[in-house]
Amino acid sequence: MVRISNGRSKASGSRRAERTRRAILQAAAAAFREHGYAGAGMREIAEKAELSPANLYYYFGGKDEILFYCQDHSLDRLLAAADEAAVSGEPPAAQIGRVIRAHLRCVLDELDGASAHLEVDALPAPLRRRVVAKRDRYERAVRALVAAGVDAGSFAGRDPILVTRAILGALNSTVRWFRPGGAVSAARLADEYADFLVRGLLA
Amino acid sequence: MVRISNGRSKASGSRRAERTRRAILQAAAAAFREHGYAGAGMREIAEKAELSPANLYYYFGGKDEILFYCQDHSLDRLLAAADEAAVSGEPPAAQIGRVIRAHLRCVLDELDGASAHLEVDALPAPLRRRVVAKRDRYERAVRALVAAGVDAGSFAGRDPILVTRAILGALNSTVRWFRPGGAVSAARLADEYADFLVRGLLA
Repeated sequence: MVRISNGRSKASGSRRAERTRRAILQAAAAAFREHGYAGAGMREIAEKAELSPANLYYYFGGKDEILFYCQDHSLDRLLAAADEAAVSGEPPAAQIGRVIRAHLRCVLDELDGASAHLEVDALPAPLRRRVVAKRDRYERAVRALVAAGVDAGSFAGRDPILVTRAILGALNSTVRWFRPGGAVSAARLADEYADFLVRGLLA
Repeated sequence: MVRISNGRSKASGSRRAERTRRAILQAAAAAFREHGYAGAGMREIAEKAELSPANLYYYFGGKDEILFYCQDHSLDRLLAAADEAAVSGEPPAAQIGRVIRAHLRCVLDELDGASAHLEVDALPAPLRRRVVAKRDRYERAVRALVAAGVDAGSFAGRDPILVTRAILGALNSTVRWFRPGGAVSAARLADEYADFLVRGLLA
């Protein structure tokens, strides 16, 4: 049984504790990258975070819980970007471009984004369901932006469900080959993907 | 050690044997879908193929070898489609549209396409290397079509490497959610994806 802190976790209420939690999530992401999710234990994560294992367990009940919060935090960032775009008053193409760039910034983030998108299947079912539900919410938010652009006549009359899945599929696949410090920077990748995918939407 | 038949396998030289091998690959794909790759053994595959286990082992040395041939066969189909497009004399947009449709037909194929694209990591390293090498060849073939369109001025001046990865990422991600017999047909999906992605390329 995986223990999940509820909204008011032991460590809540303190900004310092929240900073520690964020630092742990980033250290965990680094450990996952280095050892693989299966190979990284709480000991490796504690080492990376420069905490004692006991201290680490004070903040998180286990590795699954840490991965869950990595994913949950990433999805919160994605949802926030979609919500900001929706209220930006910008034209539909600019809104989608903004979401695409934010999505890639998040998943190509050296800190915790990539692990958040690669390892959903590693979560135990109850946690996976929560992540999948939030991922679905995000997909619906992006789809609503696409549909609004179609309705406004800015985008071609394609099926928003399919086009949104094509876009998200292209974006998420980057974590399988992108390497920080490689030939292509995350910024250039984001620009090229945004230009290409937004162009595909236009009427 | 995984035994892999060489080009002139025991069963080669006979059309009937080749048909049996194809039927086995399709039966295996169905077994992988039903039980998962980890859960489907040679016994389940033999049952699906309506062969005795001994007869199955006459054609394939093991489950890894069967998955390898599923993937290898899929990649041959993809490479053939890219090669046909390249010599078709059609405009660049039509060539890429043709490749996109062929790719989706292959990976959404009820028979063996999807497993071929989802389970690369399940292969032992020597086989995985061969599949990855052929996948890279295919990526280069698609990229050459994109680059030719850019050079001809038909496509916008984007980086063919990145655009090709965006396209292939969108296409391959369909196997994660597409269900035969679901709300969207493979044909409609292929049309929408081709229109959207080709449109994104245009100058």
